[in-house]
Amino acid sequence: MAEASQGIGADELQLATRNHGMPLEALRFDLTPAGLHYVLVHYDIPDAARGWRLEVGGAVRSPLALSLEDLRSRPRTTLPVTLECAGNGRAFLDPRPISQPWLLEAVGTAEWTGTPLSGLLEEASPADGAVEVLFTGADRGIEGEEEQEYERSLPLAEAVRPEVLVAYEMNGDPLPPQHGFPLRLIVPGWYGMAHVKWLRKVTVLTEPFAGYQQARGYRMRSAPDEPGEPVTRLLPRSLMIPPGIPDFMTRTRYVEAGTVVLRGRAWSGLGPITRVDVSWDGGWGWHEAALDPPVGPFAWCGWRFEWDAPRGELELLCRASDETGAVQPLHPRWNLGGYQNNAVQRVRVVVR
Amino acid sequence: MAEASQGIGADELQLATRNHGMPLEALRFDLTPAGLHYVLVHYDIPDAARGWRLEVGGAVRSPLALSLEDLRSRPRTTLPVTLECAGNGRAFLDPRPISQPWLLEAVGTAEWTGTPLSGLLEEASPADGAVEVLFTGADRGIEGEEEQEYERSLPLAEAVRPEVLVAYEMNGDPLPPQHGFPLRLIVPGWYGMAHVKWLRKVTVLTEPFAGYQQARGYRMRSAPDEPGEPVTRLLPRSLMIPPGIPDFMTRTRYVEAGTVVLRGRAWSGLGPITRVDVSWDGGWGWHEAALDPPVGPFAWCGWRFEWDAPRGELELLCRASDETGAVQPLHPRWNLGGYQNNAVQRVRVVVR
Repeated sequence: MAEASQGIGADELQLATRNHGMPLEALRFDLTPAGLHYVLVHYDIPDAARGWRLEVGGAVRSPLALSLEDLRSRPRTTLPVTLECAGNGRAFLDPRPISQPWLLEAVGTAEWTGTPLSGLLEEASPADGAVEVLFTGADRGIEGEEEQEYERSLPLAEAVRPEVLVAYEMNGDPLPPQHGFPLRLIVPGWYGMAHVKWLRKVTVLTEPFAGYQQARGYRMRSAPDEPGEPVTRLLPRSLMIPPGIPDFMTRTRYVEAGTVVLRGRAWSGLGPITRVDVSWDGGWGWHEAALDPPVGPFAWCGWRFEWDAPRGELELLCRASDETGAVQPLHPRWNLGGYQNNAVQRVRVVVR
Repeated sequence: MAEASQGIGADELQLATRNHGMPLEALRFDLTPAGLHYVLVHYDIPDAARGWRLEVGGAVRSPLALSLEDLRSRPRTTLPVTLECAGNGRAFLDPRPISQPWLLEAVGTAEWTGTPLSGLLEEASPADGAVEVLFTGADRGIEGEEEQEYERSLPLAEAVRPEVLVAYEMNGDPLPPQHGFPLRLIVPGWYGMAHVKWLRKVTVLTEPFAGYQQARGYRMRSAPDEPGEPVTRLLPRSLMIPPGIPDFMTRTRYVEAGTVVLRGRAWSGLGPITRVDVSWDGGWGWHEAALDPPVGPFAWCGWRFEWDAPRGELELLCRASDETGAVQPLHPRWNLGGYQNNAVQRVRVVVR
């Protein structure tokens, strides 16, 4: 943990220069170009050798070993999906959990193409007593003093949902190396940790997976000895394209008084976005924005608000609500891992 | 300025989450895929509207206004070019200049396609007394309290070199938005600040340009009142792919004792790389690596060293030399802007 008064340390900076968010002006794209989509890599981007095979095994009646050709010849689905890192917003927490220090930019929406996982599981035929499916990536490293390949599981009922894909294309091109070439899992509606990259093994389990990324990482805890609830689906969030022009260093925005069209995106993994509101008085008064239809059932929607900007220095806020009644909080909810901080965005603006 | 004991501040973090370096394992690619190539954007990525035109004017006899179609119908050149940010290595300086806090990753090599600038200048026909050419990008912001579009000049003699391109493709695709879509300047051998993105205006000048990015930014100074020498060509640098596997947070590397093949890249804008050496005793003993031919006359070359790794904790160093006799220093040379820190890379390794 670091106090707010302590800056980002050397270790965090090493992560921040490797991984990257989506510059928020890229919210103008329905589909985020690959190099602008957020990227988080736990260990190294593996060198994907020729002859990649995906194994489907564990508690199944008919284990499979599939080449990329095999996967490409299976039923093909394309879905636009909004992905967000579970640690998005972490660097606003106080004290700040030491890890990748995201502000707000760890998001992106791409069109992912692949074959439904459900078809592979059906063919492999899970044995009686199967409860979870484990996904193993090829990136290897040490975390929490355990040497590991990146591994995460899903409950069987989630894994067989029709929208869960073994994806081999992003926006119509083969996956870029940093997004999982040649194969990754796509679990629409879930935070990024579930979308295992460089996927090489799918293992059906009869006991819940208790590996590092499941039992220690990605759980909502306030103290290390709590088991904590697992992080699963995206909480609602809205972001705006910062209006006007920036100051290079402070990123404070300068806009001209008068009508300013504010635009942004909103999403939730719990249910459709029903409302986005804008405030410029610290969250006392809220003004409803117009919503566009979502880019897809698992992707963000656009929003737009014509703001009559009054002269002065102020903070612009935006806040999304979804069909389940979930609303973004005004202030972060602290937790040990720095997950799921979906507090409203605040943009400093000088209106001239 | 920040002391080494102070962490990265909130302003620097805003830049670090927007901009990004190239994860060093991507040194394995001759040509860096677009999303892995380093990106630094001073202000915002502009929304490149339809009907983009490039104006060539100022002290010329025949001003031009060219559409993208016009530019594509002119002579076409493709060149692999290594680009590096002038601020690469900044975050190792002590005290640390406050700006984008790069460690070592602000580099990449791509194949850029465009039309030679020299042909455009020839057609526009610079007037007598022309000394410089100014390049204006479409990204607008405030820096050093001056509102500006990003602008940089080149001496006329540099601007007419045959390798200087007005580029519209990167690795065979239209420029990605963050790399300058639809047009950028490419000045092979120079640090990144010269390669003006979102290029909309080329202006021939009869007096040297004295704008912010030329007269205040990108100069080697030790105090603010010095004029300082301008930053121009890339100093020699070598980087290695960190061997073995990483610890997630510290990025310390773990390798097995025995033969470890070290691989990396080296480049210089002053002249061809003549030598890369490796050390694992703090720079007392140096061992010469084998060099591959460069990827192009203005691009990096690969290097390779078979290391017999002894058990223990150590630091691996690599050091490049070029044809002009320039050699990477062991320690950073401090300057006010944090430019051109080409001190040797140091990689912490635990050999097991």
